[in-house]
Amino acid sequence: MKLNGQPGMAITRVEQVMEALRQRIAARSLAAGARVPSIRTMSEQTGISKSTVVDAYERLVAEGVLVSRRGAGFFVAGHAPPLALAALGPQLDREIDPLWLTRQSLETEADALRPGCGWLPAAWLPQDAVRRALRAIARDPRAQLTDYASPLGLPALRQQLAWRLAQHGVEAAPGQIVLTDSGTQALDLLCRLLLEPGDTVLVDDPCYFNFQALLRAHRVRVIGVPYTPTGPDLAAFEKTLAEARPRLYVTNSAVHNPTGATLAPAVAHRVLKLAEAHDLLIVEDDIFADFESESAPRLAAFDGLARVITIGSFSKTMSAAARCGFIAARADWIEALVDLKLAVSFGNGEVAADLVQRLLVDGTYRRYLDGLRARLADAMGETLHRLDALGLRAWTRPQAGLFVWAALPGGLDAAPVAREALGEGVVFAPGNVFSVSHSAGAFLRFNVSQCNRPKVYETLECAMSRAAQLA
Amino acid sequence: MKLNGQPGMAITRVEQVMEALRQRIAARSLAAGARVPSIRTMSEQTGISKSTVVDAYERLVAEGVLVSRRGAGFFVAGHAPPLALAALGPQLDREIDPLWLTRQSLETEADALRPGCGWLPAAWLPQDAVRRALRAIARDPRAQLTDYASPLGLPALRQQLAWRLAQHGVEAAPGQIVLTDSGTQALDLLCRLLLEPGDTVLVDDPCYFNFQALLRAHRVRVIGVPYTPTGPDLAAFEKTLAEARPRLYVTNSAVHNPTGATLAPAVAHRVLKLAEAHDLLIVEDDIFADFESESAPRLAAFDGLARVITIGSFSKTMSAAARCGFIAARADWIEALVDLKLAVSFGNGEVAADLVQRLLVDGTYRRYLDGLRARLADAMGETLHRLDALGLRAWTRPQAGLFVWAALPGGLDAAPVAREALGEGVVFAPGNVFSVSHSAGAFLRFNVSQCNRPKVYETLECAMSRAAQLA
Repeated sequence: MKLNGQPGMAITRVEQVMEALRQRIAARSLAAGARVPSIRTMSEQTGISKSTVVDAYERLVAEGVLVSRRGAGFFVAGHAPPLALAALGPQLDREIDPLWLTRQSLETEADALRPGCGWLPAAWLPQDAVRRALRAIARDPRAQLTDYASPLGLPALRQQLAWRLAQHGVEAAPGQIVLTDSGTQALDLLCRLLLEPGDTVLVDDPCYFNFQALLRAHRVRVIGVPYTPTGPDLAAFEKTLAEARPRLYVTNSAVHNPTGATLAPAVAHRVLKLAEAHDLLIVEDDIFADFESESAPRLAAFDGLARVITIGSFSKTMSAAARCGFIAARADWIEALVDLKLAVSFGNGEVAADLVQRLLVDGTYRRYLDGLRARLADAMGETLHRLDALGLRAWTRPQAGLFVWAALPGGLDAAPVAREALGEGVVFAPGNVFSVSHSAGAFLRFNVSQCNRPKVYETLECAMSRAAQLA
Repeated sequence: MKLNGQPGMAITRVEQVMEALRQRIAARSLAAGARVPSIRTMSEQTGISKSTVVDAYERLVAEGVLVSRRGAGFFVAGHAPPLALAALGPQLDREIDPLWLTRQSLETEADALRPGCGWLPAAWLPQDAVRRALRAIARDPRAQLTDYASPLGLPALRQQLAWRLAQHGVEAAPGQIVLTDSGTQALDLLCRLLLEPGDTVLVDDPCYFNFQALLRAHRVRVIGVPYTPTGPDLAAFEKTLAEARPRLYVTNSAVHNPTGATLAPAVAHRVLKLAEAHDLLIVEDDIFADFESESAPRLAAFDGLARVITIGSFSKTMSAAARCGFIAARADWIEALVDLKLAVSFGNGEVAADLVQRLLVDGTYRRYLDGLRARLADAMGETLHRLDALGLRAWTRPQAGLFVWAALPGGLDAAPVAREALGEGVVFAPGNVFSVSHSAGAFLRFNVSQCNRPKVYETLECAMSRAAQLA
């Protein structure tokens, strides 16, 4: 069988050769230490030019899959190393690797400032309400403190979620809702359900950086579509669907991460028409739903959960320490989804689900959100004002949420700015962390709830001037 | 490139053809609705006989990957369905599908009896201690109730775990321990780290049924090695390593599930020598560690965590509602493991980790375990006695733990016995749920903590006699 497939295939010949060898190594038809076919033999067997084969072999050497021995040819690397996530994607500077920001945000000293991180400061979260709910669980003789959850998860919470989704026009019966341990786990389960290794997945460019890290772990090809202040660029979206035939599109609609943009209804309509024409599935990550003051359009509401799957969690607005996420999907996928959930996690934690459920039913959470939105709106105004004073230009004025996406002045590159600031104990989020195409080098993402200290702006100004000198 | 690989490859030709087509479909070189090459063309291209190609195509039709149109040939199925776990493995009767027992145990009515399930009754778990620890967390002003955990997880718990592992001779620094949301998630992360799709993984036959479901989700080939009362059958183990070249072996050492057997030191030594000779990695699932009265040998202790990875959790002895598991592995794998953990879950829940940590440091858990072991030993004696009276023969007398693995008398098949009993609201665990080779049809696994009601034995007797009449 020739390696070259149908005409018009999006995968390049170099990738075809690489993939064929990887599969033979995975299947042990080429064992560790074995010599791989010579350049000439491979070229003859496959009808692919020798220079392309050389290119493929050298990229596999760079990935550590093959080793080259001078004069003797190429061999399968000796002791197969464990999967390094970094090796599954293009090699990046650690500064713009999607995992870099996660590690920096989670690992730096407690007193570091984190204007680039993706969550609220602990003091902004409903600590007292969480504390009261935990105490109520500990006191409640009917609380389920030790048993496994039922396969879909706590029925009372799924009912609450069905009601809350309906507020955004998303109709899902409680039996269409599956609880998970987090929004990230929700996306991970859906990738396992819907994707095969080698599939193509579309994301926004820029998008939430961890989409890239997670999708990499699923061994899929990730393609970005430029995002505009009203949604994905429709011409680019259509072209990519036609050319790359992606299986899945992963996006946020209500409050877009990192840009703070809101999907426009007409764009939602066009996205869904294109998805239908090209048999594309969509995961709509609605993790920022509760930051909204007015409900923006949801793809899942327009679509009626036919080809759109909604996911969400309360890690951003309630607690990331007692985590609970969910998936709402078409009814006929639930059985397969639950089988997968049981196989890879044996169910979600019921104490966290119970905690969320208690906070949702008493009015505390609603009142907390009202206050939070007002506080964020103030912080947003203040942050925009301060950034403007330093010459940064906001890409759009977000209607809600945590994030401002702003361009540095004078063609400055955000990566060295972030690196300089890190030395001062301030974690900024350079734009290319979020950009599949690495075309957002001029941008930083600011979390307005983490930007209320003068040191943030002092450090930024200082880092900008040092980076300008280095450039 | 010919499909047939090196001589001695363990994968069959039918599977080769199936896999090649699946890959072309995944890569969209064959799109939904496209005609696949004719039997003759495929046979000519690959050098594989037409009858083998027919066999492969028909199995893909059975899996829903292809559709056959009379007179027109074979086509890629129209709308690619989401991954059904069941489709990734051999088609099974639902009664002996590994997920069947999970669903039955989790979904049946609260008042059903579950002698076949894998966990303690709620009343046997340390409810009051969990309740007190939750209350202490809710009261503690320093408790971390809303933030994300650090990438490895709560340092104080990792220190406790290092100390506890040392009691079993396993030396792991806290920096070599990574917290997870469950033991299942721990194994799932390791599979992602260590396996490629198409790899071969060794399990015990019989083994914990969910290993099969989980490994299926990783698209690996699963091979069983017969288990003996002192560990895996060494001759079969060696032969399988030589022939199938598995990458990984997943096992329990201390209290084996489902047999209750304990690994003998000499067998541990031989297993590790063979693993070294064949470059095999081992995951030792030590989830039943705390049921032991005397510490059995651990592969991880003999090996010094070089090629053995230990996983564990407290879902069986503390709480399955506030779950927390862990991985202890060689230091140079931790970075890659943590990257993966962040990408696919963004960290474990800190409230559950804090709860486990509090229960471990105060003496309550230790005292609870002393009582639990005594209670289980009594229940074990009683169960063995009752089963003997019904003519069932225990395969070994377990030194500790929950499980008795016992053969039905008179060549009875456990599947119809379990089906009959389910009609009476009693969930038994038929042996083939645990057996990759389906060679344990005569066995049932009994959980002695769930066997203390006369109705268990009355129903068993009745179901046995009905199954005998049907046979």
